[in-house]
Amino acid sequence: MRILIKGGTIVNADAMTHGDVLVENEQVVLIGTELDVPADKVIDASGKWVIPGGIDPHTHMELPFGGTFAKDTFETGTRAAAVGGTTTIIDFAVQPKGGTFHEGLAQWHEKADGKACIDYGFHCIVSDMRDELLPEMDQLVEEGVTTFKLFTAYPGVFLSDDARIFKALKQTAKNGGMVLMHAENGPVIDVVAAELVAEGVTDPIGHGLARYPAFEGEATNRVIRLAQAAEAPVYFVHMSAKDALAEVRQARDEGWPIYAETCPQYLFLTLDDLRNGFEGAKFVCSPPMRTPDHAVELWKGLQMNDLQLVGTDHCPFDFKGQKELGRGDFRKIPNGVPGVEERIDLLHDGGVVSGKISPMRFVEITSTAAARLFGLPKKGAIAGGMDADIVVYDPTKKHTLSAKTHHMAVDYSCYEGREVVGKPEVVLSRGTVIVEGDQWLGRAGHGKFLRREPRGFSPITRSKVEKREPALVR
Amino acid sequence: MRILIKGGTIVNADAMTHGDVLVENEQVVLIGTELDVPADKVIDASGKWVIPGGIDPHTHMELPFGGTFAKDTFETGTRAAAVGGTTTIIDFAVQPKGGTFHEGLAQWHEKADGKACIDYGFHCIVSDMRDELLPEMDQLVEEGVTTFKLFTAYPGVFLSDDARIFKALKQTAKNGGMVLMHAENGPVIDVVAAELVAEGVTDPIGHGLARYPAFEGEATNRVIRLAQAAEAPVYFVHMSAKDALAEVRQARDEGWPIYAETCPQYLFLTLDDLRNGFEGAKFVCSPPMRTPDHAVELWKGLQMNDLQLVGTDHCPFDFKGQKELGRGDFRKIPNGVPGVEERIDLLHDGGVVSGKISPMRFVEITSTAAARLFGLPKKGAIAGGMDADIVVYDPTKKHTLSAKTHHMAVDYSCYEGREVVGKPEVVLSRGTVIVEGDQWLGRAGHGKFLRREPRGFSPITRSKVEKREPALVR
Amino acid sequence: MRILIKGGTIVNADAMTHGDVLVENEQVVLIGTELDVPADKVIDASGKWVIPGGIDPHTHMELPFGGTFAKDTFETGTRAAAVGGTTTIIDFAVQPKGGTFHEGLAQWHEKADGKACIDYGFHCIVSDMRDELLPEMDQLVEEGVTTFKLFTAYPGVFLSDDARIFKALKQTAKNGGMVLMHAENGPVIDVVAAELVAEGVTDPIGHGLARYPAFEGEATNRVIRLAQAAEAPVYFVHMSAKDALAEVRQARDEGWPIYAETCPQYLFLTLDDLRNGFEGAKFVCSPPMRTPDHAVELWKGLQMNDLQLVGTDHCPFDFKGQKELGRGDFRKIPNGVPGVEERIDLLHDGGVVSGKISPMRFVEITSTAAARLFGLPKKGAIAGGMDADIVVYDPTKKHTLSAKTHHMAVDYSCYEGREVVGKPEVVLSRGTVIVEGDQWLGRAGHGKFLRREPRGFSPITRSKVEKREPALVR
Amino acid sequence: MRILIKGGTIVNADAMTHGDVLVENEQVVLIGTELDVPADKVIDASGKWVIPGGIDPHTHMELPFGGTFAKDTFETGTRAAAVGGTTTIIDFAVQPKGGTFHEGLAQWHEKADGKACIDYGFHCIVSDMRDELLPEMDQLVEEGVTTFKLFTAYPGVFLSDDARIFKALKQTAKNGGMVLMHAENGPVIDVVAAELVAEGVTDPIGHGLARYPAFEGEATNRVIRLAQAAEAPVYFVHMSAKDALAEVRQARDEGWPIYAETCPQYLFLTLDDLRNGFEGAKFVCSPPMRTPDHAVELWKGLQMNDLQLVGTDHCPFDFKGQKELGRGDFRKIPNGVPGVEERIDLLHDGGVVSGKISPMRFVEITSTAAARLFGLPKKGAIAGGMDADIVVYDPTKKHTLSAKTHHMAVDYSCYEGREVVGKPEVVLSRGTVIVEGDQWLGRAGHGKFLRREPRGFSPITRSKVEKREPALVR
Repeated sequence: MRILIKGGTIVNADAMTHGDVLVENEQVVLIGTELDVPADKVIDASGKWVIPGGIDPHTHMELPFGGTFAKDTFETGTRAAAVGGTTTIIDFAVQPKGGTFHEGLAQWHEKADGKACIDYGFHCIVSDMRDELLPEMDQLVEEGVTTFKLFTAYPGVFLSDDARIFKALKQTAKNGGMVLMHAENGPVIDVVAAELVAEGVTDPIGHGLARYPAFEGEATNRVIRLAQAAEAPVYFVHMSAKDALAEVRQARDEGWPIYAETCPQYLFLTLDDLRNGFEGAKFVCSPPMRTPDHAVELWKGLQMNDLQLVGTDHCPFDFKGQKELGRGDFRKIPNGVPGVEERIDLLHDGGVVSGKISPMRFVEITSTAAARLFGLPKKGAIAGGMDADIVVYDPTKKHTLSAKTHHMAVDYSCYEGREVVGKPEVVLSRGTVIVEGDQWLGRAGHGKFLRREPRGFSPITRSKVEKREPALVR
Repeated sequence: MRILIKGGTIVNADAMTHGDVLVENEQVVLIGTELDVPADKVIDASGKWVIPGGIDPHTHMELPFGGTFAKDTFETGTRAAAVGGTTTIIDFAVQPKGGTFHEGLAQWHEKADGKACIDYGFHCIVSDMRDELLPEMDQLVEEGVTTFKLFTAYPGVFLSDDARIFKALKQTAKNGGMVLMHAENGPVIDVVAAELVAEGVTDPIGHGLARYPAFEGEATNRVIRLAQAAEAPVYFVHMSAKDALAEVRQARDEGWPIYAETCPQYLFLTLDDLRNGFEGAKFVCSPPMRTPDHAVELWKGLQMNDLQLVGTDHCPFDFKGQKELGRGDFRKIPNGVPGVEERIDLLHDGGVVSGKISPMRFVEITSTAAARLFGLPKKGAIAGGMDADIVVYDPTKKHTLSAKTHHMAVDYSCYEGREVVGKPEVVLSRGTVIVEGDQWLGRAGHGKFLRREPRGFSPITRSKVEKREPALVR
Repeated sequence: MRILIKGGTIVNADAMTHGDVLVENEQVVLIGTELDVPADKVIDASGKWVIPGGIDPHTHMELPFGGTFAKDTFETGTRAAAVGGTTTIIDFAVQPKGGTFHEGLAQWHEKADGKACIDYGFHCIVSDMRDELLPEMDQLVEEGVTTFKLFTAYPGVFLSDDARIFKALKQTAKNGGMVLMHAENGPVIDVVAAELVAEGVTDPIGHGLARYPAFEGEATNRVIRLAQAAEAPVYFVHMSAKDALAEVRQARDEGWPIYAETCPQYLFLTLDDLRNGFEGAKFVCSPPMRTPDHAVELWKGLQMNDLQLVGTDHCPFDFKGQKELGRGDFRKIPNGVPGVEERIDLLHDGGVVSGKISPMRFVEITSTAAARLFGLPKKGAIAGGMDADIVVYDPTKKHTLSAKTHHMAVDYSCYEGREVVGKPEVVLSRGTVIVEGDQWLGRAGHGKFLRREPRGFSPITRSKVEKREPALVR
Repeated sequence: MRILIKGGTIVNADAMTHGDVLVENEQVVLIGTELDVPADKVIDASGKWVIPGGIDPHTHMELPFGGTFAKDTFETGTRAAAVGGTTTIIDFAVQPKGGTFHEGLAQWHEKADGKACIDYGFHCIVSDMRDELLPEMDQLVEEGVTTFKLFTAYPGVFLSDDARIFKALKQTAKNGGMVLMHAENGPVIDVVAAELVAEGVTDPIGHGLARYPAFEGEATNRVIRLAQAAEAPVYFVHMSAKDALAEVRQARDEGWPIYAETCPQYLFLTLDDLRNGFEGAKFVCSPPMRTPDHAVELWKGLQMNDLQLVGTDHCPFDFKGQKELGRGDFRKIPNGVPGVEERIDLLHDGGVVSGKISPMRFVEITSTAAARLFGLPKKGAIAGGMDADIVVYDPTKKHTLSAKTHHMAVDYSCYEGREVVGKPEVVLSRGTVIVEGDQWLGRAGHGKFLRREPRGFSPITRSKVEKREPALVR
């Protein structure tokens, strides 16, 4: 099966060119100015962009949380992703408390195997960073699960204390893995949340009020310092507060390998979405949406590469039956919002169309950067020998986001009724057309598990993590 | 004439892939994994890198300075550049005092026309920013000379006062051009230099001592503020001082479109090279080499993209007869060092081999970033439809830098005897092989003048220059 | 003549105590808890504060500006000062262009001699910093005129270029004097002002719009760098912009001897006062009033000692006949506002009553700090042996500021109708009661010229100016 | 009993004057230029300074630590303090684990009552911040124990988690008290310490190596953020690392009421003192001595008031028998160094004589600032009505620090053999001469417990703690 994509504008992170792309055996085999080769299928991309399929480095399919489960399975979630132009996800496999990392991985392989419609990798969520598990981290890195998420939030559930975080950082400094951090000061947030409830603030807005931006800033500074002391890189997930971004900027100005993602909800939604009585529960996730001044800074961060990419933290719970668990106490609302399907169109519309970023930077933050940072050398660019994960993107198509039309298995959309410009027209996953117009042509099980490479050189990370002078000269 | 480059590692700024490249009609026409096409010439690139030809955005061929001329003509200088892996230069055409910009351009076209061995563009050096010339700036931008260099240094020669700089910035804010700045506080430097001479310090080291890093930092801050007030971007040439870099970092952290280059001499040489009696004259350029702590910061700047690229400020004067004009008074030494030939190998050796930057970032700072920032859409990447400016680079080849073997028309090398790893093996300029091994196959006149596009979207600039809130809300 | 001030709260910069003060022979001779000594006059200070007389380090009596003269003579101006609780001023003697510093001083001595009602010192305004005058600076320091004001503003009038400023700084580094700076980028302001006029903005608001805060910030950074290079202290007059304060903060954080004053008009008035047609001319001074966010930062600066004191820049021009010179072109409005009389009450009301600063800090910023910074060891504290410049201050007295009642020789008040809490009840100048209630008891000629000491140790400057490592290690 | 101190230079924090001081009924009753009054005792202070007695806000008499007790009792410790020119200490009363604050206070009153030779106050060490004790904090503030020390260090002993720290901060925001913080990340330090021991580093130097400056910086940032969120002031004890000072500077630049002390050991000793085998145990305290670059910054902090004062953290353990408990494992060395006796002379010699600070600033950082910050209105200045805690100080007297001559009950001196310039000649405590030359004239029990006032206005704190906008606008 040879597919020829003709006459589009090929947008990579480094350049835009006009040309044709020939796909065969799951890969890009030829790129040229006027390819005159036989093909089984020809896709007319004139007037369209040909971009590398999106990589969403942050999803939670079927995540157990607060006594319920995120609604999207690997089948529904990856289908929605693909329709939205994303052809790779990296999901989080949760270590069971008291158990091993591999036990968590095994569960997640089971969830994904035969179900995923697009390729996927795993990060490991560390629930319980016991000393005896440190060597198991090395094994995971060798097995292609190179990244470990720890939390300064959620005391009693996911929170690791500073000593444990420091040990995990030191282990990754040696084994080539990388720690991902949820950085908010959970114990202090819980104090404020309890006060609010005691004062009668039980609606979802309490969730936003309790989680001060300063608490995200503090935890970010703390983990940066620990990473420096451990001589390890660190990656902050779902950055929402300008306070936190300021810490990342300073560390990067000093040359430290500190990375961060933000999410569409922090760029396009605000604290006010949490108001409106219990309706705000739809927007409850952690960290919360912020006041608009934060989004202004996040956009600057994306422009200047202090934020390297945009993930979704996709973690959908139905409003009915799930979000409603928190009626009367915002602390019981399952944390998470849907978004895997809308990321690329939102960033195109709010980033490129609005003039904030170039098409090349758009490709970088939705795909290329994730491929480089997370060790996926066959993904993230349209180039000979790369996996043929390709989106033929119509940068002029208007459409309206809505739960009525979306493919995510959840009963609401955070962006209900928002009109955006830009839409995937054809989506290929490893050389197979899985979306064409409004048609779903993919299948569960097409997606393969991706063993990822340890962090290393990349244009995103700029440099390998150097041996730095330790903070204290011995 | 079809040339097939087979089996190399294609290194672009965004990705590294293995594959073949077919060149025809001056352009890259095909890239594939195993191209099986007829060709007039096949170049075996196995074990080699295939990289976009270097772009040196900062050269001074035949520049008049202090009563003499930089030694390299467009013929000798571009030949040396090509041998060193650079296939495009942007040279500086000097407006004569009292004259127009076009008069300067005409002179430079004459210098280059029929002589240049590789493609070239021009920046315009503004010697005399008279109000009546502001509209001429718009014309130049339309004619493809989009960048204007002004100086806070060299009082009485090139220095423009702040009012003139501000007007030039405002003009580029409107016309899509960009100001390039030589930022050192020249008047104050002259005070210190006169004091040193009065104290008997007349050797070349006086040049380094008189030009405090703080004077570069000051002028950088000043011009950044003026650019912000003018709502214009600005690009700092030859940044050498960490004081100046700190100002750029802060402005970029705040989201301003501020750019900067550094040069190999600031990364690889130090203030001590200016010592050793009059021998130090070989290293006299402005700004001067600094103490080693500055280079440490410059490398961080390159890693983190606060410095976007590396130019050479190539401006060679013979030690005998030219540099010697300054015996007895360092202020009379012609300012400038050779370097157009050595840039790429130095950055490969000191950057990639030493582990500071990735091969992809190496390509970005030597080629891609300059193409994007300076409006050369056909340069800076190996991709279909791009100009076939290609270097087959041997990343393992050891050789020794020396005036005995270099191709620049100057009687010394700043890097005499330094062994480096990495060397261009084959160099193509618009599809023509001009260097092969140690053979020069190019010719004067092959190079064409490049009309450049106004600044705009790019992965380097990240965003077009947005209309920002003015400093003062009216 | 012995005067006993009984039962007040003595407020010094370091402590508040209850007690009595005995004055004799122009000095404080006894302080005690219950002084039982004979006296010619007893002042009942119960319920009142006994504070050191104010020192206004920044006044312009009879200053020529734009073809006219500031209205207050030394007689009217110092009488108004005294009524407002200020018992010392330091006025600016202007060097005539082409002339010497002593020529300027001679003029000012003539203006003040026999007229001043309170003690006074002189700063020297440097109009024309010729190299041959550098040694004259040393003489002035010896003669008790230790401070030299230079300008980066007012091109063609007062502006000194950077080289001249640098030379003056170096001279004071050696002679124990100190440079005072008016830091705004005048040449660039003139460009913007001309544009505004060309656009038809000729009303006083144009004055405020043309002088961007960034232009004050820039000049402040520039002069700080020059001072560091010169290893000299520097004092910024009339700081108005948070941009400038940020530069001072950073320099002080790094340990440099950088000082700054602000003025009441920047704390209590705003850019909007410049609106309202030509009425705004009353508020034209340089730098201009700013938007309210600047005042917020200035107050923090006063609280944290990044601003050491508050002067007035008192320079009154009648609205009628003087300010009106600028009808139709804001650039022709004489720059300056009255304020010497209102400073202390405004700071008491807006600082102490509002809870921003303590009574002790109030004394420090209105008196003690100026005494220490400007070399007046007999002023600025209520202590044995000090000059008996004393104000019995009623911290609860309400009154209304108005041109109808003020003593300044000017036809309007910037604070017309503002009610403030706090008022001097009795004022002593060197042991003589010159104000009592609403009665003026002083006389022209009572005030004496103060020879000031070179800068040195003080609790305000914290340290003498240390020999620092030069910016460049030679 | 009337004592007349004649002819000295009275040095207060705000001014230096020549004059006489009359003491009666424990207080200063008269200050004058030439007091001609009868007195029971006349002290000739000509050529000497008359300064307010020192206040050491940080001592640990008889502190239990690691199974042993600090050697100095309130009798020996306060005698040594007095000989060294300190006439007030504030000691730390330790809440027993599981007990109440008052139980700790009762123990400390018992230790001090009838023993102390000089006046003393108490801070409360919070070992166990249980919610039910929050109201007891309010009681303590009313009873004159207004300050509460918490720790981010010493896990399992003194460490409070962030939630508890936050609650304590919020309580002081309401009750006018203030939290004092020992800010080091104890849990992470323990990880590094265990690693070092595992690697065979068991000597005292391991103590210094394990406690990275970054761990102090991190904890300082964390607590500053919590204090901001709680709208409370905070005071950092024994600041040693420039990393921590940088955080304090930034917060103060932003106007927050953040305070810090350093100690002589961080100004005069270095990490290298911890080397030399087990001898280094003499210098084991927490945080540890640092490399010399830290001391450079601490001095700047003292000059610029980012550090408000110098305490000692006096906590002496004999080398023999006590420090030796840690032979073979540096973690078992009791933490603490002696110093209450040497503080004033060290600061005079290293601060004033070396030209770093003025005599007035010397008085401020050794006495006045502590009086203002910690609510002792009768202390910290020579003024009418103040407690007659007075030191007649000889600023020219040379002497040598040594365990052979010191009065502290400990078998070594950290400054053994160091010659310093400056020594107390006569010391008065509340009007009683307790030291005269080398003679001890005081007695146990003379010292009284000081009820301190809640924080408030002061020239040191500059402003009362304002109600600030919360981090999150609700």
